[in-house]
Amino acid sequence: MPALLTIALQTPRRVAFVDITTEVERARRELPLAEGALLVYVPHTTAGVTINENADPSVRADIEMTLDRMVPGDLPYTHREGNADAHVKASLMGASVTVPVAGGRLLLGTWQGVYFAEFDGPRRRQVVVVALPARTD
Amino acid sequence: MPALLTIALQTPRRVAFVDITTEVERARRELPLAEGALLVYVPHTTAGVTINENADPSVRADIEMTLDRMVPGDLPYTHREGNADAHVKASLMGASVTVPVAGGRLLLGTWQGVYFAEFDGPRRRQVVVVALPARTD
Amino acid sequence: MPALLTIALQTPRRVAFVDITTEVERARRELPLAEGALLVYVPHTTAGVTINENADPSVRADIEMTLDRMVPGDLPYTHREGNADAHVKASLMGASVTVPVAGGRLLLGTWQGVYFAEFDGPRRRQVVVVALPARTD
Repeated sequence: MPALLTIALQTPRRVAFVDITTEVERARRELPLAEGALLVYVPHTTAGVTINENADPSVRADIEMTLDRMVPGDLPYTHREGNADAHVKASLMGASVTVPVAGGRLLLGTWQGVYFAEFDGPRRRQVVVVALPARTD
Repeated sequence: MPALLTIALQTPRRVAFVDITTEVERARRELPLAEGALLVYVPHTTAGVTINENADPSVRADIEMTLDRMVPGDLPYTHREGNADAHVKASLMGASVTVPVAGGRLLLGTWQGVYFAEFDGPRRRQVVVVALPARTD
Repeated sequence: MPALLTIALQTPRRVAFVDITTEVERARRELPLAEGALLVYVPHTTAGVTINENADPSVRADIEMTLDRMVPGDLPYTHREGNADAHVKASLMGASVTVPVAGGRLLLGTWQGVYFAEFDGPRRRQVVVVALPARTD
């Protein structure tokens, strides 16, 4: 059985929080992992991953807006590719989340979803999911 | 033996960094885990978890103050529940920390403690602790 | 075989992003880990670790500049040691990253490197690396 799986996605805009909860749950089933944790890892430097509210999409819009305020696009950056803000936001969100798994299901909280955080799209992107088993003795 | 344990806590204010280091160490003993890492996971969307200074409580006050400056409560948020700032702060701190374990103890640095970061309390909250064993062959 | 290894480093300035990718890869070989994930953990409270662009050093300079703008050194902090900003930045970057390992190599993206994020140097620092194996049955 595989130790990890890859999820491919197409992001729709320059900045977008894309719900990948269903894809992460499918990866858990296919690995499969019953007890432990899933590492959800983004191998890019202008995107990250975060866990937040799954019900009201306005929360994602508010995170985008606040990150833009904290990391404006027009600061005197030295990186010349025009996406320095995307690199900074990627480090603020982080390159991975780790989600507990028990009884064969993701232990996300009631209101939690997993979001791919695109900061320099639209692009084809990948997410790596690794099964980390808990002790079962 | 269980693969994970849950810590329950009551947070005291709207915004509060609650020291849960003792509870995390107790979870390590009860699981028990001797070598590997503990995943400390917050299943909420208006709270997070972070590792920082365990000696001087003013550090937590300074983190609260700086996060308030970065994510003010009165921005033109679209989320209508009055806690949009709490969601943004939760993603900035993150939903989990992972702490090394060796020789049957948490490898926290001398000055490190584990803090539940409440941004929309006071509330009853939970923290999930998962034992991830290291290779022992 | 050991479950974890420690990397020692000397940081060069008060604020510096030090590339530790080579040291992390060496730790992977020495542990050794073929399939799973490496936890890269910083046991300090005025430094963190992040994953970002490995090609253009201006990206690290831009992250330093933006963090300084978000967390200025001259806010009315209550922590009296003159390094309150360093504590806040440490929590924003985080105390650990977790990197997938498959086929005996780190699954960092093409442009990703692992950076020790010093915010109160120059100092002697340590990084703990823990091997977390994937399921291999």
